[in-house]
Amino acid sequence: MNLYFAPLACSLATRISLYEAAAEAQYTYVDAQVHRLPDGADYFAIAPMGQVPLLETDDGMLLSENSAVLQYVAESYPQAQLAPAAGPQRARLQQWLCFIGTELHKAIFAPLLDPKAPPEVKAYARTKVDLRLATLQAHLAGREFLLERFTVADAYLTTILNWAADSDVDLKAWPAVFEYYQRQLKRPSIARAVGEEFALYKEEQARRTAAA
Amino acid sequence: MNLYFAPLACSLATRISLYEAAAEAQYTYVDAQVHRLPDGADYFAIAPMGQVPLLETDDGMLLSENSAVLQYVAESYPQAQLAPAAGPQRARLQQWLCFIGTELHKAIFAPLLDPKAPPEVKAYARTKVDLRLATLQAHLAGREFLLERFTVADAYLTTILNWAADSDVDLKAWPAVFEYYQRQLKRPSIARAVGEEFALYKEEQARRTAAA
Repeated sequence: MNLYFAPLACSLATRISLYEAAAEAQYTYVDAQVHRLPDGADYFAIAPMGQVPLLETDDGMLLSENSAVLQYVAESYPQAQLAPAAGPQRARLQQWLCFIGTELHKAIFAPLLDPKAPPEVKAYARTKVDLRLATLQAHLAGREFLLERFTVADAYLTTILNWAADSDVDLKAWPAVFEYYQRQLKRPSIARAVGEEFALYKEEQARRTAAA
Repeated sequence: MNLYFAPLACSLATRISLYEAAAEAQYTYVDAQVHRLPDGADYFAIAPMGQVPLLETDDGMLLSENSAVLQYVAESYPQAQLAPAAGPQRARLQQWLCFIGTELHKAIFAPLLDPKAPPEVKAYARTKVDLRLATLQAHLAGREFLLERFTVADAYLTTILNWAADSDVDLKAWPAVFEYYQRQLKRPSIARAVGEEFALYKEEQARRTAAA
């Protein structure tokens, strides 16, 4: 497998999942600002939306969209138990993946992190924060994970919560969410993935500053 | 099963899927403006986000989020073949469900249809239209469905495209998308579901006008 990623972008969730599964995988850097691959190739040629994650499977399939990529990884490494089998618990996993993707990622953090989004757009996104984080708070209170054990949904949720500080969203207002996030950061797969991508992120920022 | 729905909201996709499966199901109206059930009960008491669709399964599970609800319906009625079996085609289905949910529903149409969204928010959402509908156009050109046959993703996509006119998005600019939408509207399950919910929508509008 080959994961196209940008440092600390939502593709981090797939890296975490691959580390959880001890999977042999390649990781190909995408400069998400100019949509270029390291050899200068146009990323849009393989990813019509220009987004990460994009997973190239061993069969040569190019799969996009977090919810699909994460479930694909979970199914490729069943011994890692990153997703419940088909049935009610799999439905719950899909519910959380969809909630994280639509309500947290797209409704809140995508506009808050977009340097091109005008202040009115960011203010509108902030009106969405309370209900969504309160919903998460109510669910996480007294739980270690979203489901009964660690799944790809936790990899995705931790990746999104990792954007809160840069979005001026103070997770401490939702203690169960804040504690969940702090706990997940200590998980070995997550500590490793976040550490590595943070270093790549700093390098990328330094390159951009030097080029500006 | 009992589907909590609001007329012509995204819960329409689940109604279409249930009709495709010839499923015995109940449909419970939710007044999405005030988040009340027909008996006056607070909808937030059963749906923490106050959103439709919410599916109450025969086991009493309350499942939310389109992607989860639609796949649950597909798996409950396998004879209707509304979702491919596990494997690469199921991954593609999940990719399209996620694309529709995040890139079309949340990034474009949710803000365009929100009467409380200020003009800057709607303008920002409009900047997202071209890339997303061009991506859809490129995929649908020469295809009858998103995958090889009708799936729950087509039910969801048709439901979203049904919002284009009210959002001032002229689908004719993307001919394969426009023709796909026109074709789907003629499908019996969709014609029936849209017709019924359009009537309920008009009644709801008339009630609100009378109460105002």
